[in-house]
Amino acid sequence: MPADPLKLGIAGIGTVGAALTRLIARQAENFARVGRDIRIAAYSARAAGDRGLPLGEAAFFADPREMAARADIDVFVELIGGADGVAYDAAKAALARGLAVVTANKAMLAAHGLELAELAEQTHAPLAFEAAVCGGVPIIKTLREAMAGNRVRRVSGILNGTCNFILSKMETERLPFDVCLKEAQRLGYAEADPSFDVGGFDTAHKLSILAALAFGARIDAEAISVEGIENITLADLVAADELGFRVKLLGVAAATGHGVEQRVHPTMVAKTTPLAQTMGVLNAVTIDGDAVGALTLVGPGAGGDATASAVAADIGDIARGGAALAFGRPVAALTALDRVSLQRHEGGYYVRLSVLDRPGAMAKIATRMADRSISLDSIMQKRTGADESPYVSVVIVTHATTETSIREALALTMQDGFVRDKPQVIRIERP
Amino acid sequence: MPADPLKLGIAGIGTVGAALTRLIARQAENFARVGRDIRIAAYSARAAGDRGLPLGEAAFFADPREMAARADIDVFVELIGGADGVAYDAAKAALARGLAVVTANKAMLAAHGLELAELAEQTHAPLAFEAAVCGGVPIIKTLREAMAGNRVRRVSGILNGTCNFILSKMETERLPFDVCLKEAQRLGYAEADPSFDVGGFDTAHKLSILAALAFGARIDAEAISVEGIENITLADLVAADELGFRVKLLGVAAATGHGVEQRVHPTMVAKTTPLAQTMGVLNAVTIDGDAVGALTLVGPGAGGDATASAVAADIGDIARGGAALAFGRPVAALTALDRVSLQRHEGGYYVRLSVLDRPGAMAKIATRMADRSISLDSIMQKRTGADESPYVSVVIVTHATTETSIREALALTMQDGFVRDKPQVIRIERP
Repeated sequence: MPADPLKLGIAGIGTVGAALTRLIARQAENFARVGRDIRIAAYSARAAGDRGLPLGEAAFFADPREMAARADIDVFVELIGGADGVAYDAAKAALARGLAVVTANKAMLAAHGLELAELAEQTHAPLAFEAAVCGGVPIIKTLREAMAGNRVRRVSGILNGTCNFILSKMETERLPFDVCLKEAQRLGYAEADPSFDVGGFDTAHKLSILAALAFGARIDAEAISVEGIENITLADLVAADELGFRVKLLGVAAATGHGVEQRVHPTMVAKTTPLAQTMGVLNAVTIDGDAVGALTLVGPGAGGDATASAVAADIGDIARGGAALAFGRPVAALTALDRVSLQRHEGGYYVRLSVLDRPGAMAKIATRMADRSISLDSIMQKRTGADESPYVSVVIVTHATTETSIREALALTMQDGFVRDKPQVIRIERP
Repeated sequence: MPADPLKLGIAGIGTVGAALTRLIARQAENFARVGRDIRIAAYSARAAGDRGLPLGEAAFFADPREMAARADIDVFVELIGGADGVAYDAAKAALARGLAVVTANKAMLAAHGLELAELAEQTHAPLAFEAAVCGGVPIIKTLREAMAGNRVRRVSGILNGTCNFILSKMETERLPFDVCLKEAQRLGYAEADPSFDVGGFDTAHKLSILAALAFGARIDAEAISVEGIENITLADLVAADELGFRVKLLGVAAATGHGVEQRVHPTMVAKTTPLAQTMGVLNAVTIDGDAVGALTLVGPGAGGDATASAVAADIGDIARGGAALAFGRPVAALTALDRVSLQRHEGGYYVRLSVLDRPGAMAKIATRMADRSISLDSIMQKRTGADESPYVSVVIVTHATTETSIREALALTMQDGFVRDKPQVIRIERP
């Protein structure tokens, strides 16, 4: 282990970058336990100046690409963000020089992770990204290293704290989606344009990285079927509660008989599971491995300090010379997954329909299900809203069936003419 | 990375050893992703013979010490057990030769971990023990590597599945301790002599290892104050339930104003916490770090396959050359912790008293508490058993106070003469 300090160049002094500089100053002694001092030798930001941060004698670079290409550093810490542009150019420049790269940039990894990992292999440079998925939760290290002896069967997780905050608040305070989204925005959990989070796209980026680690898959974010939480109503959460479930936006990558499914959608999970019990802005991931069984990690998925903690763990691995290959194996050993159509998904379903309250309606719906060999776990009718409404809410929970069957049964039910509005369909995930 | 296979010698072919041989055969391809084939080159057991296991051409050694000293292997996998004797002698022999040692032996580590780690440092041999604490849950790797940038404030965990099974079953099925212990024995979760598990000593061994990793402390199992679950009654679990708590046997190592407390005892934890939600034989650990906040890992703490999974993760780290120092830093950098007396513990308390039902009894108890400046969160009286009994159950929940204060207040209360039996006292752990 080299005795000279490990020199960091930090690109991007925002919330995470500022937290990281403070963490390194605060933990200097603790950090040294890995056998090597750690020092911030350079930084890059929109403007020079230490803004009260312990940047010491660190050299300022206006352009992170220049820092990556020329600064006297060992590790390029990329905290700029964005899939392309400056972050991507700078990361490539650093790896090309043989510098270690630590990044929190999930969008860049989802788009260019394989190319960057190949470049890292060529120059024998570590590429680490614990902070890119689930903030402070060490899910990358766990999948890459702790699961070495396992064949992973499924990874499922709450990967977006914004969505989990909204769904938790809707359920516990019995509030509609819009009110909870506004509250998330007020608290800084959600962007002014929340569609990237609530639409499930952020979760999909993260899932593509987890699937690569869990299944040795080439990153393929396009292969992920994505549904967001925009259409989840309080009525669904109340019905879920009565049925023993909670609704969570999950990213799921699962080995099935016809390939690895990769999907992001609102999901009914049993209240007794660790994922269901994860409330608020926390993240949680359950890994199901053939040797270990189910292993769950729960913790803060965002925030400056928690994310800096993950960046620091990567830096620690690099300092002691223990960094693994980016995806736990050479990029050449990763295989392209077949794109598994969600039509072939098998599982239980929750369906909520607004049905004209007349004799025979329930029987007709049940028959449509039976015609597609869908076995029902329960079917219950609830009056909603004003008592004089001619419509009632019918909630159906099915045993395992296929997406195709449920969609066909619902299409025929719609044709029967006594169902108002588009049916609400939520997949059930059983552990 | 060397291209020749990593040669294992497995000492002890019991449940875990057998599971490990099968895991290695099954995962050969998957394992190779770390860049090096893994092969079982030797094994040691009471008798030769492959007993249906994929031991291939592995050499048999009747004496594990001889295998450690002479076999053509790179890694000595110690699955014999026992703090001293053959396991300890063989591990020393292997490390002295510069072989990597992987062990699941918490008792040996609690007794000799520092000596073994020093020996490993001298011969530059990895010493790894993920399987020694919490079976398949990667708590060692998480504390040693993922928390590199954190100052750990507290580690608290359910480290013994037997106790958690018993407490969970008592609560959910409203059964007494003895019945649940017998069921645990019938299912093979508890030994014929269960005192090592239910008395908290197994938890203490594991906690001493976690404290070393979390606080850079020299292992000192003697410094841990230990109480078991033998005296927990169904009445306590029912009262806890009503108060919003569950009772768990926790191992806790926590930084306090007067040093690091290390303690094992039944604990009231809020039902909303991941630890409270961990039921049955599962294990769970919450790490509280100054950067990451609270991080929880939940999973199987025992069983052949889950434990083999942890052993395999250590082997994977060794195969890729990424194994860290045993305790994340040199043994010389570990510091002896002051032994913090539990008398100085500060926290909330649950107290259950059997009180003669007469006017003024509650007031007298409350006064005794007030005299010691103990602030009460609640005090409730419940009739137990036959209505004609002159005794009622009084349950008190206090705000934060000290162990000394509560013990003094209770001693005085006992002297007042209207309390029957020893008071039940359970510490409350707030996240």
